[in-house]
This record gives sequence, C-alpha cells and structure tokens, in this order.
Amino acid sequence: MRAAVRRGRALFCEEIQDPPLGAGQVRVKTLACGICGSDLHALHYFDRMAEMSRRTSGSSSFDPNKDCVFGHEFSAEILEFGPATEGKLKSGTRVVSVPSATNAAGGLEIVGYSNLLPGGFAERMVLNEALLVEVPNGLASHVAALTEPFAVGAHAVAKAHAEPGSPCLVVGCGPVGLAVIAALKARGHGPVIAADFSPRRRAAAEAMGADVIVDPAKENPHGQWAVFSVPATMFQARMMNAAGQPTKRPIIFECVGAPGVLQSILDGAPVGAKIVVAGVCMETDSFEPFLAINKELEMTFVLAYSGEEFAATLHDIAEGRINAEALITSRVGLNEVPQAFERLANPEADVKILVEPWR
Amino acid sequence: MRAAVRRGRALFCEEIQDPPLGAGQVRVKTLACGICGSDLHALHYFDRMAEMSRRTSGSSSFDPNKDCVFGHEFSAEILEFGPATEGKLKSGTRVVSVPSATNAAGGLEIVGYSNLLPGGFAERMVLNEALLVEVPNGLASHVAALTEPFAVGAHAVAKAHAEPGSPCLVVGCGPVGLAVIAALKARGHGPVIAADFSPRRRAAAEAMGADVIVDPAKENPHGQWAVFSVPATMFQARMMNAAGQPTKRPIIFECVGAPGVLQSILDGAPVGAKIVVAGVCMETDSFEPFLAINKELEMTFVLAYSGEEFAATLHDIAEGRINAEALITSRVGLNEVPQAFERLANPEADVKILVEPWR
Repeated sequence: MRAAVRRGRALFCEEIQDPPLGAGQVRVKTLACGICGSDLHALHYFDRMAEMSRRTSGSSSFDPNKDCVFGHEFSAEILEFGPATEGKLKSGTRVVSVPSATNAAGGLEIVGYSNLLPGGFAERMVLNEALLVEVPNGLASHVAALTEPFAVGAHAVAKAHAEPGSPCLVVGCGPVGLAVIAALKARGHGPVIAADFSPRRRAAAEAMGADVIVDPAKENPHGQWAVFSVPATMFQARMMNAAGQPTKRPIIFECVGAPGVLQSILDGAPVGAKIVVAGVCMETDSFEPFLAINKELEMTFVLAYSGEEFAATLHDIAEGRINAEALITSRVGLNEVPQAFERLANPEADVKILVEPWR
Repeated sequence: MRAAVRRGRALFCEEIQDPPLGAGQVRVKTLACGICGSDLHALHYFDRMAEMSRRTSGSSSFDPNKDCVFGHEFSAEILEFGPATEGKLKSGTRVVSVPSATNAAGGLEIVGYSNLLPGGFAERMVLNEALLVEVPNGLASHVAALTEPFAVGAHAVAKAHAEPGSPCLVVGCGPVGLAVIAALKARGHGPVIAADFSPRRRAAAEAMGADVIVDPAKENPHGQWAVFSVPATMFQARMMNAAGQPTKRPIIFECVGAPGVLQSILDGAPVGAKIVVAGVCMETDSFEPFLAINKELEMTFVLAYSGEEFAATLHDIAEGRINAEALITSRVGLNEVPQAFERLANPEADVKILVEPWR
C-alpha cells in the first residue's frame, strides 16, 4: 500500500507492506487523518521524543532510526477481521479509535509513532477491534477524524475542574488551544479569553466560540482579569469575599509549549490561578518558582485523554456542540504530505490539514 | 528597647524606639522567637525578596535599604492595650499571632519583615488584638513560639488533599520538611518517607514520626515507591486497577527550595504524582516540562497558612499531636543572634534556634 514514510528527517511517499492482523484486530481503510503539531516536532526531534518516553515510562521498543508512518488523528472504514474478533461492527462501518494497538508480540504500540504499525498517513491501518467507536450517521468522515485533537481539549478541560463561571484564559490558539476553547464552550464554561499573535488563529478562536480575543502584541492578555472581576492579589480576594462578592478560581491553559511561555504566565497570573499545561514543550524551560509560591499557583500537566473522553468528544462533534469542521483549512492526498508539513510551519497559512490517502 | 536590627547585610544589637500603639493594637513582651530559613535568606537577598513581593502583590511600602527587625515565629505576653481595644484577654496573658499587623496609616505589615513594626528579635512588639490566640495552660512559651513554622506544614498538607493511605515523600528535612512530616502524622496520613543528606536532620525526621528515612547519598528516595506499591507508569496503574489492586495518588513535598530539586523530583516521580512545593526557591530554576507532561504531574505551590490552620496547629502542639519541642536545638539571647544566624548555615549544628530577648 502507499504511505508517507518518515525516514531520517524527511518524508517519502512510497509502497510499504501491510502488517499482519493479530488476535482481536481489524484492517481498516484510512478515510482521513489530521497532521498534528507533534508530527511536525517528531519529524525533526524524534530522538528526543523517544528518549523522553523511555525516561518517563521505562523501556520502549521504539527506534527513531527505523521507518515510521505518522498519523494518529484518523477516521477509517472496516475492511477485514483478524482472528478472535467479535465482528459486532460490520465490514464497511466507519470508525474512529484512540491511536493505540497491540503488536504481534502483544506489546502496546502508539499508532502513528510505531515502527511496526503504520499510522493514518497510509492507505490502510491495523487497529484493535475493542477500541473502535462507530462514527454516527450524518457526521462526515473527514470531520470525524478530528475526534482525537478535540479529545485532547476535552481532557485538559476535565483536568481543570472549572467551577461554573470560572474565567478561563487560553494562551495560544493552535490546534490544542482551539480544542480547549471548543471543549470549554461545549461544557458551558467561561467566559473564555483567547490569546494568539496570529490573526488567522485569532479568527479560528472566534469560530470556536471564544468570548474575548486578544492580540498579545497589542494588549496584555492578563489585563482581562480585571474586566472579569478576578482579584489580582490575596488581599483583594479577601476584601471581595468580605464584601460578599463571589470570586471564582481563574484558569489558564498553556497551549503553546515553547520555552518562556510558562514564566510569562506566572508573571501575569492572578493569585490562586490554576494553570493547565497542555502545550508540549520538548526543551528545558526556566521559571521563577518564587512567583508561583507567592501567588499560590497550581500547575497541572496534562497528556492525551481517556477512552470515555474520546468517545464523548466524537458525540460532541456529531451533535454540533463542537464545530470541528471550522478547524480544517486544507485536505490533501498522500503525495502532498511533505509540502503540507512545510506549510504548517507558518501559522497564517493553515490551521488543520487533513490527509486523505485515497485521493 | 533592645533589638537585633538588620542593616545592610549584617545584624546589630542595639536600642530602638517602641512604635506607637494604633487602634485595636496591643503591646506585647516577646517571650520567644524562632529563626526561620527565610530570615537567613533575607539577611543576604532582601532586595530580591522585596522586588519579588512587589511583582506578585503590586505596590509595597517596604524598603530593604531601611532598618528592619526580623522575627515572625513568636510567642508573647500582653503588656499594654492601645485605643479601641476590647481587652477580652487580660494583661499578662500569653499569646501567639499570625505575623501580620496594621501600621499607623492603616496598611498591612508583615511583622518580622517591616520597616515600621519590629519583629520578635526585639524585647517588645506591637500586634493586632483581633489576631491574638491564647496559649493554652501547660504549653511552655518557647514551644508555643513554634506554632508559626508548624502551621506552614499544616497548610502544605491541607493543600495536598491526601487520600487516606496516600504514600508521601518529603524531600528535605529542614524546618519546613519537618513541619510537613509532623502535620502528616498529626492528621494520620502516610506512610511518610523522609529524605535528607544530613544525619542531624534525618534524626529530626525520625523524631517527627517519619515512617521511612532515606539518605539520598546512599539510596534514591524514589526507590521507595515500589515498596509501597505505587505504580511507576500509567500502564502499571491500569494493570493494578484492572486487578482490583487499589492505588493511591502519591504525594511529594518539595521542602528544599534550591534550583535543580524540582527537576530531580520530576525525574523520579511516579506517574500522576502530586508535588506540593513548600520550599522557597528565590532563584530562577529550570526543568523539563516534558517529564511533567508525560507523567501528568501536578505542582501546587504553597505559601503561609490561614488563621484557622494557625490556631489548629497551636492546639496540635498543646495536645501532643505534634512534638514541637524536638525541633529546638538552642535557646539564645539577643546578643547571640548574629552568631546564631551563622550557625544555622550548617545543617549539622542546629535545627531550630529560639531567641529569647529577655535573656
């Protein structure tokens, strides 16, 4: 089958072998697969990602020097059933799945970051039947593919434990920040303040339903706290409470993942804020702990989502609570994958590019 | 009256003026006052502390270039009542108080870090009547003075929201770490693992009731997680849950406050751990956010305590749930304050030195 193969620090469109079907597995046709910021990063810094995974989760069989087919934000159609499958969903059913599947040795692979199982930038994939979720009728396949990135937002929002009416600031409106905005609005949270230097991304934040949109080049996003009656200091908070004025814990979502962003958030955050770190910073970062101590800040670092959050996100999209389609700026075939990766380096050019390997 | 005055980067024992008594205030005789790690730090880095306070809480009238009498861990005896006081506690009553009082202009001063109100390294202080808490009969005055540092531990533990049976690791057994151990044991939490390079401090950790004591020079403190069945990875946690084996969220207290400690904790922490940062690091620190993301760690930065936590701590000490006296290694007069500050730089020499200005 055809696939976009990562080898060295480049992508090559070529023919590869279909992997064998293991027990409980199905072969699927890839209908659509989004390009994720992690893919862009992995193209260049795969060694570091693999090293970090080893340090955090013990041994890893993954080898960044071997071929890998990226793609973990996908929708697909069932083609073929392997041994010991149940067949509850028939052949031809459209599905999504968390990007996790077993290899022939019974180990767990991340589909899209595996040497053994190709991800969604290939015509076909092998998935675990037990993890498949049927795409509801009426939801277009290319939109269903965005379940995965929006589930990242749903998880970050769940981890924030926002009270009703908590003011939320989303720093960075790339796909992660946009998914956070969408999840906040789908759950009735807010007001939601969104900040990004890019006009294109600010427009996307508006499409996701952000209530206030700030260009940090013109205005400090933390200036908005006063607008929403968030006390800046412990003393102000005490005064407001004493006056019977309710104060909600402010929440800040870090969705950039670059060095220095966390420190700028610590500098601007009001006292007692909860910071949910959803941006993936691969480099060493520095900050002044004393700022966080003096303001009694909390930082919660989040990763991925649960199976329940993934399934709930698919239904949020299908039922119109999340306008996933508004994120899609291009749909390309496999041959165009290398150029699409290059285009995504420019935040003005694209937000989300979908690869449709059947094109 | 006599006081140990901080001027420049040195301490001078000399005569100073008693400040005037404002509305709602009482004059007290200082019975005992502990030397805090923050005092040692403030002697040398007061400019930086003042700058940080300004950055985190807006304007501050405090001037590090003017004289200041340190001392915020005190017990005292009521001498004299100012205007508009209620006099519920009689003259001669022994009291403790959170180190906060109003100045003549009605502003709030931190007693012990103020240019206007001297702290406990002076024969007398001015305190707000409304904040006084009576020392119970039978509790020695020099032990009651330790209410403040132990309240710091009580607050850190309250912010940890530990489940019953959560394994807790305390990194650093200086006064903050020891107060955390004491508060954990007073509330029935644990098992409590304590780690410190100093034999003196490990012995103090034992006196506070730590269940396991580790010398990090000989053994990685994070090796203890396996002993208490804490899953190291998300995968292990899922396997244990599936097998009906209960897992508790591990809690790590950072009680050192030096650059690099947080990174070493991120490196060793099991997945999903909650890190309570109680050590006050005044310098810029660096860390790898990716470790925290991949393990979904949470960092809660804590400062001080509430009035309720302060009062509850006094009663924990009075009723024997906290063995505060075990922390005290020396009791000195005002003349010995400069040497006592020097001695505290060596962790083997002392744990807590009390100043008794009447000596």
